[in-house]
Parts: sequence; structure tokens; C-alpha cells
Amino acid sequence: MTELHFDEQGLIPAVVQDSGTGQVLMVAWMNVQALQNTRETGEAHFWSRSRQGLWHKGGTSGHVQHVEEIWLDCDGDTLLLKVRPDGPACHTGETTCFFTRLA
Amino acid sequence: MTELHFDEQGLIPAVVQDSGTGQVLMVAWMNVQALQNTRETGEAHFWSRSRQGLWHKGGTSGHVQHVEEIWLDCDGDTLLLKVRPDGPACHTGETTCFFTRLA
Repeated sequence: MTELHFDEQGLIPAVVQDSGTGQVLMVAWMNVQALQNTRETGEAHFWSRSRQGLWHKGGTSGHVQHVEEIWLDCDGDTLLLKVRPDGPACHTGETTCFFTRLA
Repeated sequence: MTELHFDEQGLIPAVVQDSGTGQVLMVAWMNVQALQNTRETGEAHFWSRSRQGLWHKGGTSGHVQHVEEIWLDCDGDTLLLKVRPDGPACHTGETTCFFTRLA
């Protein structure tokens, strides 16, 4: 994992994309442990900045995200997860967190 | 723009997606001015954290990104730009910056 660049808080942003529809579902943050848990379980884990704790996406709701691919960008400071989601990504019940059009 | 939440550096991350192919091309950062320039010109502008300056994507290379839609996520701290790119997103010449598969 030497090519990954975590920020000064030890975090890296992860874009989550539905591998089937191509829809961008959400952006969340990972630390080393969240990435390790994701790779070991095949289900997306993140670091919740608001709760300051590890977060197994769907651990409570059942809306887990099965991670099929993980990609790293050219400067190593952003991840892209291609997932097969078991339910909506958003806590509001929307499929994607990006449901508000600005322009 | 009251619902937008910029971070303590005055920045918000923007996921850039090709509106035609659905491919996630890159993630970059915007400040208020970059977002305003983007909305006024219809071409993606960002804030370069490394150069600490405004950055008109493709201003030098010609690989501009024509912004068709801007979406805001549910907690207002991430943007999604759907674009029609005039060339590769990545400075390496790759179509997308996410060309390194980690898992």
C-alpha cells in the first residue's frame, strides 16, 4: 500500500460507483483499517468523520456494498470503489446521495 | 449556495464523471470562485491544492470539460460534475485518472 497517500488526518476519499448502472452513489473516507476491512470482507468499510469511528456500510441497515474493484488515481490520493449495492446508498433512502441538482 | 458546505480550507471535493460513458474521470477540489467560474463558463474550473491557485481544466492542454450537470450530495459536502470531455482527464494521457487497479 506504499503508493497510497493518506491525508494529514490519515484519510483518503473513496468514490463509490455502482458497477452495474455506472451511477456514482456516494463519497466517503477511509483510513488504513477501513481499507483493510474492505479488502478482507469484500464489503465497503469507511471512517466516519462525524462519529470518529469505523463504519461498516450497511452493517445496521443491511444495505451493504459488495466491492468488486478498487482503483487508485494517478497521484494516489483518491480511491474508486466499484460495488454491487444491496440497497440504497443514501441514509434518506435515495439510491444515490447525489440527488440534489445544483446546475 | 447556502446548502454547500466547504471545508475549513474553503474547499469542496468534486467527482468528475463522463456523461456519455459513465466513467469516473477524476476527483478535484473547488472553492467558491472555481465553482462560480465553472457555472459562468460551462467549463470545469478547480482549485489546485499543489499550486494554490485557480485552475481552468484544459486551459493549457485544450482538454476542457464541458459541464452538463452539477449535483450536490445529501450532506452538501461533495459535488458531482457530469461532463463532456474534449480529451483525456489525466495528465498522463489516460482517459481517467483511475487507471491503477488496487484490488
